Parts: sequence; C-alpha cells; structure tokens
Amino acid sequence: MSLMLQEITEQPVVLERTIQAEKEKIRKLGNYLRSKDIRLIILVARGSSDNAALFGRYLLEITTFIPVSLSAPSVFTLYNASLKLDNALVIGVSQSGEGTDINTVLEKSKAAGAFTIGITNEPDSSMTKIVDETLLIHAGREKSVAATKTYTGQMLQFYMLSSVLSDVKIEYEQIPSFCAESLQLRSTVEEIVARYAFMENCVVVGRGLNYGNAYELALKLMETCYVVAERFSSADFFHGPLAIIERRFPVIMFAPSGVTKKSNIDLLRRLRELKADSLSITNDEEIASLSSRYIAMSKEIDEFLSPIPFIIPAQLFAALLAETKGLNADSPRSLSKITKTL
Amino acid sequence: MSLMLQEITEQPVVLERTIQAEKEKIRKLGNYLRSKDIRLIILVARGSSDNAALFGRYLLEITTFIPVSLSAPSVFTLYNASLKLDNALVIGVSQSGEGTDINTVLEKSKAAGAFTIGITNEPDSSMTKIVDETLLIHAGREKSVAATKTYTGQMLQFYMLSSVLSDVKIEYEQIPSFCAESLQLRSTVEEIVARYAFMENCVVVGRGLNYGNAYELALKLMETCYVVAERFSSADFFHGPLAIIERRFPVIMFAPSGVTKKSNIDLLRRLRELKADSLSITNDEEIASLSSRYIAMSKEIDEFLSPIPFIIPAQLFAALLAETKGLNADSPRSLSKITKTL
Repeated sequence: MSLMLQEITEQPVVLERTIQAEKEKIRKLGNYLRSKDIRLIILVARGSSDNAALFGRYLLEITTFIPVSLSAPSVFTLYNASLKLDNALVIGVSQSGEGTDINTVLEKSKAAGAFTIGITNEPDSSMTKIVDETLLIHAGREKSVAATKTYTGQMLQFYMLSSVLSDVKIEYEQIPSFCAESLQLRSTVEEIVARYAFMENCVVVGRGLNYGNAYELALKLMETCYVVAERFSSADFFHGPLAIIERRFPVIMFAPSGVTKKSNIDLLRRLRELKADSLSITNDEEIASLSSRYIAMSKEIDEFLSPIPFIIPAQLFAALLAETKGLNADSPRSLSKITKTL
Repeated sequence: MSLMLQEITEQPVVLERTIQAEKEKIRKLGNYLRSKDIRLIILVARGSSDNAALFGRYLLEITTFIPVSLSAPSVFTLYNASLKLDNALVIGVSQSGEGTDINTVLEKSKAAGAFTIGITNEPDSSMTKIVDETLLIHAGREKSVAATKTYTGQMLQFYMLSSVLSDVKIEYEQIPSFCAESLQLRSTVEEIVARYAFMENCVVVGRGLNYGNAYELALKLMETCYVVAERFSSADFFHGPLAIIERRFPVIMFAPSGVTKKSNIDLLRRLRELKADSLSITNDEEIASLSSRYIAMSKEIDEFLSPIPFIIPAQLFAALLAETKGLNADSPRSLSKITKTL
C-alpha cells in the first residue's frame, strides 16, 4: 500500500484528534477576535494548502460575512507593497510551515498591524514562530509528497474557526464519521478507476464550497498520475473551457445536493448533448441519473459539510489510478515535499 | 482576415480613444474616492474580464496599498451572504455589461453600502444602470467571440484608475504606441506559429502583473485553437504542475525584464534540464538566451507597463495558430458571446 493510501485512511482519526486538541483554544481565540473589529480576512498559501484556502474563503464569507481575499504573495515579496492591514486577520496555511513566501507575507502583515494565524501540521516550524496564534493539524508527519490528511485537516480548521467567528451553528463534529463512511467506498472507487486507466486528460468541476476540491483533485491527478487535469467552476465552464470538452475529455464533478445543484445539472445536460463522459461524486439522485458514472455519497451529508467527506473518494481515485497506471504515487517525478518560493 | 485578427489590430486606436474620452471623468472620480476612506477593493468578473481583473488586482494593490479581493459571485448569488462592505469599492468588469451574476453582486454590494464602478464596453448595458460610475471602453462593438480589444481596454481602465487612486505616476499614455509596435511582430509570430501547428497541449506561465495574461492566453488557446492550455504562476509551478511537463508540453512564458525575472530564469533553467520546449515573450536577453524560441519585445517597456503590449503577440499567436490549424477563430464550437451565469 502506498504511503498516500495509508495517509488517506488515517483521516477520520486525524480529524477527530484535531477537534479534541484544538477546540478549546479556538473558542478562546474566537472570543478575542470577536472583540476586535475584523473587517477583512486574507488567506495566504500555495499548492494543496491554497486549495484548502480556496474552500476557506467561501466558508468564511458565507458564515462570517467578512470579505475574504486570497493573497497574491508576490505583491509583498517581489513588489514590496505595504498593504494597509489595520483591522485585518491574515491566515497563513502551510503543511510544513516553511513556505518562504507565505512566511514573508505573515511577517509583513503582522508588522502592518494585522492579527496573524498560522494553520500548519508542524508545531516547531518557522511559521509558528511568526504568527500570533497557531492552529495545529494533529496529523503526524505527512510522508507522502501528495498532501491528503493535512489538506482535510486545514479544511477542518476553517470550519472550527468559522464556528467561533460567526453565529452559525456548524456541526463539524459529524465530519470524522462521514469520512469513515467515505473510506468504505474504496472498492467502488477501485472498480471505477479501471475505466480510466488510460485517461491522459480530464476536467474537474466544482462550485462554491466544493470549488477548492476541484483544484485539489486536479492537482492530485497531475502530481501522482501525470493526468493533465483542467479545473473549473461549473459557472466559468460556459466561458470558453466547454470548447475543449469536444475532445472527449471526461469530466469529474463534485456535485452534492443543495445550492450548487442547479448549475451542475445544467452542465451535465450540456455534457450529455455533447456526448461527453461524466463521473460525479454525489448524493443526489437526479445528478447521478444524468452522469455516465457516479460515486454515491451518504444522503445525510449536507452541502455545507460536504467538502471534506467528498474529497476522500477523489483522493482514493487519484491514489488507485496511480497504482492502475503502474506509477508510484509517493514519489512524483520532479517534485519535493517542501517548496520554498520567493 | 478573421474578425479576431482585425480587432487585435484596432487596439492602439481603441486604447488612445479610451484615454482621451475617459481621462477627465476618472480624474474627478479619483478625487471623490480619495476623499472617502476606501479600505477594500473587490473586483467581480468572469471569463476574459476576470483575467483583466486578475491583472487589476496586482496593479491596484501595488500602487494603492489597498487590499484587493477577487469576488466569488456564488457567495452572493447561491449562498445569499450579505458581506459587510462599508468602506469598500466594488468594481464589476464585463465586456457586455450583461453578466447576470456580476450585476447581482454589484446590486447587492451597492445595497450593502459599497461604492460601485462598472468597467464595460456597452454604454447602454444593464451594468451601467446599476453602478455609481461607469468606466467605458471605447472599443466599438466587439464582434469576435474571443475578446481582445475589450480585454486590453479593461486593463487600461485599471491603469487609469490606479493613477488617480495612488501617488504613483503611471505613464499609461505610452501604452498605445507600445501596442502599435507590438503589432509589427505579426510576421515574426506567423513564422513561430508554424512550429506549433500540431500542438495539442501547452502550459502558459506568467507572474505578478503578467499572471492574468497567462490565464488570458490559455483561454484564447482553448477557445480558438482547442489547445488544452494549463496556466500557472512561475511560483506555483514547482508545487506539482512541473510533473506534467515531462510529457513534453511546450511552455509559453510572459517574461519581461524586472522583478519577475529571477523566478522566470529559475523555471527556464529547470525546463532546460528537463529538455522541455519554451517560448518566451520577453525583452530580456538572458531570458531569450535560455528559451527555445522567443518573441522580442521592445527594451523600452518597463515591467510595470508590460502587460498590455505583451499580450498582443500572444493574441496574434492564438489567432494565427487557429488559422494554421484550419480553424475559424471567430466561431468557437459551443460558445456564445454573452454568458448569463447565475
């Protein structure tokens, strides 16, 4: 079994451990931040962590109503701009806590008066020494180059933080058991993967809270399977990318019941007209019936809590597809675990 | 000649006309906005306009030091969140002014207390009736489905707006003549295109102010040539995407002299080790010498003013590649000019 597969299966335990270890600290942090007048949240990350941040952006805006910006690190590192950050909360997200540009943004933001938080898996990393508060993912060392348990751990931290910054009751305690259920899908995913053994290109689609998941699955497919995976919002898809579908690229879609259903249905109908192949990760019967193939998720999962349990079959898909293709998911060509961009 | 090629050649005239027609209005708008306490700028757009907004995001942050967020329209349209937008400036960007979700975000932002601006080519569009102020691109009707002159017109508006919101002296009056020079590259681009006649995939790279251009060229290649074009920042490239380069995808790079040079050089060196094909649009000799092919831009163009003149050879590349491939750039399959997402 690859390290990647092993780490995928650890996720329910990691998530539960993180909830227990961090809950009280985050409650206090929430009280403190609510006493301040936070008017802007800036998230800064790269790679898989940036995909978790893309999820966090939607979640924080939807629950706290505070506008969120995904930072462009080069504004700080290359252009040396000193942004006006009074009343800003700046959150760095990095598995290793050693991303040089992420840490530079955190340092400069703190100097500019922002409150800074680091979400990381490494308690002794450089990031933890910079930020005002660290939110730790208790995943144990992540050995696979392809991030899985730290990605969902980062997403969980965004749920926990949103719950203390907003008046929304977020039942994130349900997530670990939804994830345990998701892991039961392994044999189903294994069967489906066989069909995609020779896939070289695909398109991954998601919207709203599942948009970050589309980026994350695409990145996993590029890293571990060398599949060229385009990623789009189902909304942007009609602005150009649809043209390439006629080249018979399969479309993989995160499509829970709920607010994003209508646009996913519209896209699936269009894909049927174009006779394109579609694979949905869904708990909605209408979506399933319109898809060429589907992975059936539990109907108990509300769209609001879907992103973490829904990424798990996608992680399994990437890890098992790598195996089917005769590749080693743990040692992608050309990549290293820590990337120090500046 | 395709409509697309014709509209590409109109750009120096369109840009000059837009400067003359809008300059005085924008000066007054700047005075007004500087008297208010703008603490956040939100840009909202889709498709090519979103690529112009991605450029605008860097430009506005670098010059005004006001944090900028690229809006996620579904936060407003699907999740019905009421963001806290006092002291926010919200700018919608749409060629047609008829993007339903863009207009919904503008309406809701205005209701929430934000000052709203619309950047559009259509003076009688729905957008102009919603916003507090319209910045018009004087491009004449854009007939080609692939946006070119409205894309650069939108970018120009961001320069004009930045110049009145910041203390930076921006010499945007130079841009139309730089663009006229860029158009002289047509025969050079025509020769280079021959080599890419059978290209089916590629990667487009840009960073900082030219990051939006990477997205824009990729979109043009998808829309008009059915080339599957990945787009990345040269910084993100080392976080995974590098793995797919080993499949011998050519890399097209926006690489002006200046602050982004070092990271582009690092990437070009790595591409040489991997024996990957690279095509640079550059005015830097070292970059040119490290690239398999290059399109030589004027050395007079500073990185800060490079994005508009540098996109022109890229637009020519897409339009001429479509011709070489025997495709009609003006009528991409499956696409329509106005996309009304909700």
